[in-house]
Amino acid sequence: MTMDYFDFSPAMMTDMYEYTMLDAALHDGTASRNCVFEVFTRHLPLRRRYGVVAGLGRILEYLKDFKPNESDLQYMHDNHIVSDDCINWLRNYKFHGSIWAYREGEMFFPNSPILQVEGTFGECVLLETLLLSVLNYDSAIATAASRITSAAGNRPCMDMGGRRIHEWAAIAASRAAIVGGFAGTANLAAAKKYGLKCIGTAAHCFTLVHDTERDAFVSQINTLGKGTTVLTDTYNIEDAIRTAVEVAGPQLGGIRIDSGDLATMAQRARKQLDSLGATRTTITVTNDLDEYSIAALATAPVDSYGVGTRLVTGSGCATCNMVYKLVERENGAGQMAPVAKKSFGKATTGWRKRALRSYQYGLAQGELVLAGSQKALDSWKAPAEYGDTKDLLICAVDHGDVDESLMTRDALFAARDYHKAELAELPISALSLSEGDPAINTETLNI
Amino acid sequence: MTMDYFDFSPAMMTDMYEYTMLDAALHDGTASRNCVFEVFTRHLPLRRRYGVVAGLGRILEYLKDFKPNESDLQYMHDNHIVSDDCINWLRNYKFHGSIWAYREGEMFFPNSPILQVEGTFGECVLLETLLLSVLNYDSAIATAASRITSAAGNRPCMDMGGRRIHEWAAIAASRAAIVGGFAGTANLAAAKKYGLKCIGTAAHCFTLVHDTERDAFVSQINTLGKGTTVLTDTYNIEDAIRTAVEVAGPQLGGIRIDSGDLATMAQRARKQLDSLGATRTTITVTNDLDEYSIAALATAPVDSYGVGTRLVTGSGCATCNMVYKLVERENGAGQMAPVAKKSFGKATTGWRKRALRSYQYGLAQGELVLAGSQKALDSWKAPAEYGDTKDLLICAVDHGDVDESLMTRDALFAARDYHKAELAELPISALSLSEGDPAINTETLNI
Repeated sequence: MTMDYFDFSPAMMTDMYEYTMLDAALHDGTASRNCVFEVFTRHLPLRRRYGVVAGLGRILEYLKDFKPNESDLQYMHDNHIVSDDCINWLRNYKFHGSIWAYREGEMFFPNSPILQVEGTFGECVLLETLLLSVLNYDSAIATAASRITSAAGNRPCMDMGGRRIHEWAAIAASRAAIVGGFAGTANLAAAKKYGLKCIGTAAHCFTLVHDTERDAFVSQINTLGKGTTVLTDTYNIEDAIRTAVEVAGPQLGGIRIDSGDLATMAQRARKQLDSLGATRTTITVTNDLDEYSIAALATAPVDSYGVGTRLVTGSGCATCNMVYKLVERENGAGQMAPVAKKSFGKATTGWRKRALRSYQYGLAQGELVLAGSQKALDSWKAPAEYGDTKDLLICAVDHGDVDESLMTRDALFAARDYHKAELAELPISALSLSEGDPAINTETLNI
Repeated sequence: MTMDYFDFSPAMMTDMYEYTMLDAALHDGTASRNCVFEVFTRHLPLRRRYGVVAGLGRILEYLKDFKPNESDLQYMHDNHIVSDDCINWLRNYKFHGSIWAYREGEMFFPNSPILQVEGTFGECVLLETLLLSVLNYDSAIATAASRITSAAGNRPCMDMGGRRIHEWAAIAASRAAIVGGFAGTANLAAAKKYGLKCIGTAAHCFTLVHDTERDAFVSQINTLGKGTTVLTDTYNIEDAIRTAVEVAGPQLGGIRIDSGDLATMAQRARKQLDSLGATRTTITVTNDLDEYSIAALATAPVDSYGVGTRLVTGSGCATCNMVYKLVERENGAGQMAPVAKKSFGKATTGWRKRALRSYQYGLAQGELVLAGSQKALDSWKAPAEYGDTKDLLICAVDHGDVDESLMTRDALFAARDYHKAELAELPISALSLSEGDPAINTETLNI
């Protein structure tokens, strides 16, 4: 796309105060203090049982170009946003710090240290807004997707939600849906960018633009082959199915139903298709589906689900309320020291964290968050009572070096597999769709 | 930004089936049939009293470059998405049709024909996904923003939500918030792109990176001046206010409170500031504010509101569920004819629409949607019982010519003024925050 749209760098997808804080910190010297920031959420949205991390690959992609361009600097200068000293510092900016993070596809719980950034105050503070934007949205979608695919069991779920959310968010949603177990997307840009399976049927307008429904089906089948999926509810579903099988024969690939009581309609459609010999013709249903309506369709003869609005809006919660907090920094004496705010209801825990998940008999028992000095964290050994433990933070950026393997298509599909395996290791209560407590407790230990 | 991110044109921000339908329609000849598509919603989200249109300027911006690039065409070829005939057609594609739309800032109600696209089936069908993505998200945010600013009365509302939603959606949200009456944004990219007032205070990390809160305030005030707004709830608000006024003197610009019971905290802070002589120091509050919590702060001594999560997620509804439906098209005999689908619960009304709002004594009485042939619509005169009427659809694209005046910064601020004036002309029940019926009824007349 042209620069008309995007005459700013990723470094501008940021709240202004990150830059004004940088400016002040450069003048007083604290900009060069070593710091540790952490991303976490205080509670799971809508009292769900678990959250699913997504977006790390996108963050790393942005990070490679996270630097204001000359036009950005000119804008900041002209609008007196920061001083010239600050602009000169920004001209040489590159993130040289390190980032550890929960894998994409990993579960998170209240106070899980989902992402950890270490570097100078100046280089770390600028990342806050963009890190949170990506993690908050992508994780909200992956979490919804995971619940939806759980409810769908072995039936594939397809993302058809692009039209119901901001056009770029739609592309991120297609990606995050994969992490949560979706099989493909209707969105061409997402399919192209991330190498996803692209799917589609036909819209009502295609039937309506033709003089008859039969004309529409003949045209679709002639061009796209008998394996195509026709939309059957423009006029009367029974008539449409009869016509479609007459046109394509029993090899008709599939039908889609987009209105009415889907369970009843699917039952009738299956019976009719079978009676016409189209026993292998699949049934896709769509129409504001979410995890609840899909769970209710478990016994209906449905082959796949197209999920739109409710997927891309996080099924009731389009954000995770993750925050980015300073937890440790160099003091005036050059020593790393814990810091924490005391705001009412929003107090934080100082020190860098180490996160582990504990297992008994292969089943997750708890989220263990250790807070302490680097030395204390490194030397901590889990007492036997915790059973087996697994460290949850992986290194994504090492002193400015981005681990590019985390940005690939393979990494995205690995995240889906990882998520599926992790979900199987949570207590069965994790699969409950009702509101309640997290599937496992988070224990914070100051060591 | 580099092409690494965006190796696709806006024409790919589209569901695949728009292209496969085009392909089939090219082969059977219906792609060249003249058509009218309309965008509307069947109900207002969350039983609100009105919706607010936003996004038209963004649509027009995209439309100028809405054409698959060579890399997109190669992708479609390599993945057998459409035939070579279709790819050749796309190589010469440009939208030559016309678009009429409700102005940005205009109210909409159930079945308001918010946007109308006229052209051949082939050129119109491709626009569906992107038009809906933009209108659904931007209008959801403008609607939330309007309710929030109504609740805030004369106190300015500032968008601070970028970190809680997808990073590009954040920029669109800043823009849509302006339509809904917001005064500015924290988001630098949005401020730069749309010429918005950019605002900001400081984060808790800025206080924490310093050895003392006083050090932080001294630094901020030295760099940003006494007019700056300091964040007071890192440790203890009373101590923070005392320190800030000691450092800046009574000319301190403002304080921000981000936790606790905001009404009580604001009362105490005002009293303390006044007692210190800082009678003009303003109080900004933030912390998951929405129209309800802001309404509850009406009597608290607050000067401005920073609104985040709830703004950018549409205060409970991040989409408007708008749809894009074919309502009229040329038949095999070359005559324009109405078309409508009969799907259960999702039936549509054929014919192109003309939309008017009727007024009595300057107050809106109803939304009048006429359905009929172009000739019937053009010649229709409102009977006296409708009082004064105003046509709601304006021409945004005339046979491919985009009205660029609708894309400007001036147009954005004009939309905000227009919205404010329109809101004042709705029945007072429109301002009710509770669930209920639309502020005015929509009457559809087949003429």
